[in-house]
Amino acid sequence: MPYEFRATRRVEFHETDLAGIVHFSNFFRYMETVEGAFYRSFGQSVLLRGFQAPMGLPRVHADCDYLKPLRFEDVVEMHLLVKEKREKVLNLQIRFRRIEPGPVEEVAVGHVAAVCVQRGTDGSFRSVPYPEEFARNIEIAPAELLWPGRAA
Amino acid sequence: MPYEFRATRRVEFHETDLAGIVHFSNFFRYMETVEGAFYRSFGQSVLLRGFQAPMGLPRVHADCDYLKPLRFEDVVEMHLLVKEKREKVLNLQIRFRRIEPGPVEEVAVGHVAAVCVQRGTDGSFRSVPYPEEFARNIEIAPAELLWPGRAA
Amino acid sequence: MPYEFRATRRVEFHETDLAGIVHFSNFFRYMETVEGAFYRSFGQSVLLRGFQAPMGLPRVHADCDYLKPLRFEDVVEMHLLVKEKREKVLNLQIRFRRIEPGPVEEVAVGHVAAVCVQRGTDGSFRSVPYPEEFARNIEIAPAELLWPGRAA
Amino acid sequence: MPYEFRATRRVEFHETDLAGIVHFSNFFRYMETVEGAFYRSFGQSVLLRGFQAPMGLPRVHADCDYLKPLRFEDVVEMHLLVKEKREKVLNLQIRFRRIEPGPVEEVAVGHVAAVCVQRGTDGSFRSVPYPEEFARNIEIAPAELLWPGRAA
Repeated sequence: MPYEFRATRRVEFHETDLAGIVHFSNFFRYMETVEGAFYRSFGQSVLLRGFQAPMGLPRVHADCDYLKPLRFEDVVEMHLLVKEKREKVLNLQIRFRRIEPGPVEEVAVGHVAAVCVQRGTDGSFRSVPYPEEFARNIEIAPAELLWPGRAA
Repeated sequence: MPYEFRATRRVEFHETDLAGIVHFSNFFRYMETVEGAFYRSFGQSVLLRGFQAPMGLPRVHADCDYLKPLRFEDVVEMHLLVKEKREKVLNLQIRFRRIEPGPVEEVAVGHVAAVCVQRGTDGSFRSVPYPEEFARNIEIAPAELLWPGRAA
Repeated sequence: MPYEFRATRRVEFHETDLAGIVHFSNFFRYMETVEGAFYRSFGQSVLLRGFQAPMGLPRVHADCDYLKPLRFEDVVEMHLLVKEKREKVLNLQIRFRRIEPGPVEEVAVGHVAAVCVQRGTDGSFRSVPYPEEFARNIEIAPAELLWPGRAA
Repeated sequence: MPYEFRATRRVEFHETDLAGIVHFSNFFRYMETVEGAFYRSFGQSVLLRGFQAPMGLPRVHADCDYLKPLRFEDVVEMHLLVKEKREKVLNLQIRFRRIEPGPVEEVAVGHVAAVCVQRGTDGSFRSVPYPEEFARNIEIAPAELLWPGRAA
């Protein structure tokens, strides 16, 4: 069962702002992209396709700490780690490392938490457990990966 | 019947890019925003709320010519003019003028064309006439406004 | 000295996603926009125009908790409150309330923290105190506004 | 000398709108991304790094015709073709084809034109010829690629 996933992307021009760096809001879009790729890696989708109609994974929390800037054409690695896995909530940590140009440097650390919801016959949404076929692909990452450099 | 509409907005930080100016793609978002405000000005919506279920206005064409840059905190006036009005297609011209800081200058001219579509019982979309309650609010702008400075 | 600021905006079409709601990343752009308007309200700018050359306010932290969705054409009030004011760091809380259509409902609460930096003659940035002419316009909001509903 | 370049990307969640399809403005961001990759393919950059200080490639025109929608997680191929190459202006055509899920279908065709500019000692920008080391990597695409299906 995977508890981590890695993807890289190259910073695009439109993702920068007048300060010459990636706009802080775009790190949240990067997080979403690596989350989607993580689910696809085990044959699932953030859309929860194929499950009892309509389910979704709305975000309930997101945060990011910014350590260093990212610039146009930099290549960034996004390292996703499963931080919390509850019946109805997943909390993912994403560590951003600039890998090009070197040397490799941690540039940001963020989290995004989503709750699994299902639409009832009256149109309202209520939180429900993640489907078993989805949840069985995911486990919690070891603490030493989530909090590197800290004593256990 | 209106053939024009004006709105202003102040350039936001995230709309700029590393060249220090509004990213060219954002002019298309500005066009959409003034289009939506135009429809609201006569009690309608780009969602075509209230008409026979599901109708929409997907874009079939968009273009923009860029004359001058826009910068953070500039105030831009968007002047919408109805360029073409066909049974199933509307083509809108939007003229962008920087009004702050002065002097007033034309910075860009763009167009967006949308077709009215309706979803059939088989799920597929087909083009249909704009609803009468919608179309009756709109007329074509005079040529001298659409092509200022040109002989008629 | 102000410790709060309010602005409203109407949700734009391009800010929504396929779930039919405002994409979670856009709340961070909304926060930035109200922050900029707050500074303009006392004659300053997030660009720190006019101070010893080049200063900036890069973000070091951002977070948001999402309570309810926002939809296209909703009107949202952004209520900015100064949460922390240190010599080199400002931490702003932004409370989002949907005010149209009613009833008024809190939809999200977020924070963004920025550090004041200045570029040295060697090109590197280092944190510096906020300029006095900037900082004197700002004070910390009362606790009962930052944590409504909690006993003092 | 290359006159074309191909790249693919998978549609991201934040690129969609409430109609469930890629927002029309994002096709312009896709165009920019493939343009940047084209220049990198022969060792150059849209930033014109390494040439006499500050040069840039501001957009003077952009357009797109939309044929079919793109949806979340679709894979789209962007096929860049050099349409015009003048001393100071490049005009690029980008053809968008959905390649996943099949069958392959053309979904949009767009253009973006940029002018080469250089900042003078007085701070103003003026148009200049593309640097030879840049321009020599590019030639105009054959007409039958730019206008497929039309008699020569």
